[in-house]
Amino acid sequence: MLVSWRVKAVSLGVVALSLSVELVCWVFRHLRPKKALNEVLFFPSELACVEHIFNPTLTYSCFCSLPHGIETSFSRLLRHILSASSSLDLCVFAFSNMDLGRAILALHSRGVIIRVLADKDYTAISGSQIGTLRKAGICVRCSKGTVYMHHKFVVLDSRLLITGSLNWTLTAVQSNDENLIITEEQDLLLPFSQEFNRLWVKNDPCKRPLSCSQPKP
Amino acid sequence: MLVSWRVKAVSLGVVALSLSVELVCWVFRHLRPKKALNEVLFFPSELACVEHIFNPTLTYSCFCSLPHGIETSFSRLLRHILSASSSLDLCVFAFSNMDLGRAILALHSRGVIIRVLADKDYTAISGSQIGTLRKAGICVRCSKGTVYMHHKFVVLDSRLLITGSLNWTLTAVQSNDENLIITEEQDLLLPFSQEFNRLWVKNDPCKRPLSCSQPKP
Repeated sequence: MLVSWRVKAVSLGVVALSLSVELVCWVFRHLRPKKALNEVLFFPSELACVEHIFNPTLTYSCFCSLPHGIETSFSRLLRHILSASSSLDLCVFAFSNMDLGRAILALHSRGVIIRVLADKDYTAISGSQIGTLRKAGICVRCSKGTVYMHHKFVVLDSRLLITGSLNWTLTAVQSNDENLIITEEQDLLLPFSQEFNRLWVKNDPCKRPLSCSQPKP
Repeated sequence: MLVSWRVKAVSLGVVALSLSVELVCWVFRHLRPKKALNEVLFFPSELACVEHIFNPTLTYSCFCSLPHGIETSFSRLLRHILSASSSLDLCVFAFSNMDLGRAILALHSRGVIIRVLADKDYTAISGSQIGTLRKAGICVRCSKGTVYMHHKFVVLDSRLLITGSLNWTLTAVQSNDENLIITEEQDLLLPFSQEFNRLWVKNDPCKRPLSCSQPKP
């Protein structure tokens, strides 16, 4: 009987230790913080057709002259932007890239709440997408003052930050050496969200005599 | 005897479970990855004296007219840059800020290995710090081609990345709306290090007839 209880005691100890090891493994797998997305894109991006990104259910092939089926820095950027489901806050110095304009319009038509803050000097330049966005009813505000609003960042759904050196122009995407960080890190994202809200309020057109954010008649 | 062994078995189980809980706590405290530094700076920066950052052991007070003892975005940036102890790889479009130039020269005099990659058009502009760095013997390369080398990032000691919209100019620091991310996240830092090395090799002056990286006589 004594030996039997010794065996039981040792068995119980082994089981308890095994369970503890299992518990540690489970904690590692499930309770440690999920690794936030961190991605870096460099430009210039390869030239490639992006039609399938706007129309994922495209049943016909695109016959444009650009290469097809290539994943590029620009297609990655477009996919991330089009992943927005509830809100998009864009703060950008120069915005003339038509594909990026199309992406913003597509999100707007899906009901995503969009706020765009742009540099007032660049907004007036020929080729700027800002007028197109306004005409579609998207809320746009322009920077006040004489200095540059030189940011190039966008916050999607309060979960994803895209920021870097890249202005939203064709030259930046296709020619220049540029970078973008795409991150879910809250330590990085939250300050940008707060800065956007601060600048949004600061550049409220109701607070100045001359408004540049009213849709043109 | 039977009861005694039952008590021992239960005690052993309790001890094993207690140890497992302790183990889980220890794992949480010690084995989970250390949180990487993530910091965001926004500009324009407040105007303040930065003399004490260059001379931490300053025994006399600075009598300049700027406010003293204020921690600003620019002073944070300077502190981070001056924390480099072995290497600094800078890839920047516009570099005319004299305090930032002074910081690079200070690191160079401490023996930090410095590589600077600059946009060739901006390098030739009056006020650029690139000539001053070259004269001090710092290795500088200029971008080839007709497009902009529009990056604004620096990698310190292969451990810290500073990147964003901020060019290294006085206007960017004191006037514009700008941002900088300062991060130790390896997922973000490593691609920038690799991109720097790629651009450094690509813009090797030995590979082209006209070099802009040779120190002027």
